[in-house]
Amino acid sequence: MQVNSTTKAFGGKIYKLSHESSAVKTPMKVNLFVPNRATGKAPVIYYLAGLTCTGDNGLEKGFFTAAAAQHGLALVFPDTSPRGAAIKGEDDSWDFGTGAGFYLDATREPWSSNYRMETYITKELPEALKGTSFSSEIDLGNASIMGHSMGGHGALTLFLRHPGLYKSVSAFSPISNPTKCPWGKKAFSNYLADESEWAEHDASELLSKYQGSISDILVDCGRADGFYKDGQLLPESLLSASEASSSHPKVLLRMHEGYDHSYFFISSFAADHIAHHATHLE
Amino acid sequence: MQVNSTTKAFGGKIYKLSHESSAVKTPMKVNLFVPNRATGKAPVIYYLAGLTCTGDNGLEKGFFTAAAAQHGLALVFPDTSPRGAAIKGEDDSWDFGTGAGFYLDATREPWSSNYRMETYITKELPEALKGTSFSSEIDLGNASIMGHSMGGHGALTLFLRHPGLYKSVSAFSPISNPTKCPWGKKAFSNYLADESEWAEHDASELLSKYQGSISDILVDCGRADGFYKDGQLLPESLLSASEASSSHPKVLLRMHEGYDHSYFFISSFAADHIAHHATHLE
Repeated sequence: MQVNSTTKAFGGKIYKLSHESSAVKTPMKVNLFVPNRATGKAPVIYYLAGLTCTGDNGLEKGFFTAAAAQHGLALVFPDTSPRGAAIKGEDDSWDFGTGAGFYLDATREPWSSNYRMETYITKELPEALKGTSFSSEIDLGNASIMGHSMGGHGALTLFLRHPGLYKSVSAFSPISNPTKCPWGKKAFSNYLADESEWAEHDASELLSKYQGSISDILVDCGRADGFYKDGQLLPESLLSASEASSSHPKVLLRMHEGYDHSYFFISSFAADHIAHHATHLE
Repeated sequence: MQVNSTTKAFGGKIYKLSHESSAVKTPMKVNLFVPNRATGKAPVIYYLAGLTCTGDNGLEKGFFTAAAAQHGLALVFPDTSPRGAAIKGEDDSWDFGTGAGFYLDATREPWSSNYRMETYITKELPEALKGTSFSSEIDLGNASIMGHSMGGHGALTLFLRHPGLYKSVSAFSPISNPTKCPWGKKAFSNYLADESEWAEHDASELLSKYQGSISDILVDCGRADGFYKDGQLLPESLLSASEASSSHPKVLLRMHEGYDHSYFFISSFAADHIAHHATHLE
């Protein structure tokens, strides 16, 4: 893990990092905020960004760092896909391929060689961060996860697919039921070899079959969000999924009048999400 | 004034506006945040951005809206220069011409035809905002001003050159003594017809000659700021200028270890600046 720059912010530090990923077989950039704590290591929150984004959007426009500094929490902002895998068709559309890895391990050729973002986020990235000079300041075993849009899908599915790996989850405008929306159908039909695999990467499907107890799930979505209105997000599916589940995990879905899909919406509720995770971390 | 989009943020609204400016004779974009107040009109803070920026940088990356919403204050984010004036040499360098209007009215040809940002910011823009449908929500007669780098120079000089127009001023990493730094010398020698005019647009020169009482001036600057280290900012000149002045205006200069010139620095202290202005407004 190479440190490309170190910048002070909110009493802590922002590290702009890069490394060679063995999971996705391309170089990957990562942004990390480490708070200034009087004592102890900082628990970690991963923020997964949406379609077309990089690790910069959430860091620069999400307003998360202010609240994370207050709570003494670290933030990790990974990228949204491999970069420069040189697969034919990779850069043809904004909602598939580069910038649109959907946080899963592809099983269909040719994508399965590089598009392995689930392994990257859940296994390789934490390991890579462990090897850094500032690893003594962050507690990688004490982590939560959140995300926006495609990253909300990523946060929810990685949380549900890896019980115990994350203490809590939250999402802004998540793609909540991808097997039922155009974005999800396009991604899954191309990344996954067989339609029988789709449900394993659908937060609502996973939640409806979830066994055991999990922390409350916080989800914010704007009613003026064009993608919500177009049926790409379907956050209400999470509520019915929770009802269908034997353990009835609590989904706190907050629908906000007038808010859209932008970082103006995300930043407005960023402090709530950090506070949510803070109650579950440490 | 045309409303190009309206987005909800922090309970208030962000308006992306544009209009034909008679002062600079090009179309100009402006961003406006109007808080949601229970009663009364919102006082207004102008944020002037730095070299190469537009009205988007402070809005998206400054984290000002969170604190402005708490205090019930509106924020205006103007652009940094005319756009598309088609003057020869306008786009030749990043620190002069487009994106680098220096918030003054040029007196040297050919710049004097369009580069009239002082008139634009202090006269035309407030008038244009008065004519909008949301003007009843903002109190344009109750205003303060702040800025970053070149915009810090703009905030300080417009505040000092127009007594009573702004209730308070603050700046992040301002170009504080432009007659003594490379950026200022380049801008002034090109924009101003005669060197005798330079001091009238230099915050330290203006402050040293200031008569009467003014509100405390809040200035933050990072010690790891490369432009500070290169002698472009010279914020200490404001302290000696205050000593030289007959009224000794109080300059609260806070030098921050480890912070640089970026929006990570600005956002870290944004809430302090909003609180500073809140004490002077209403």
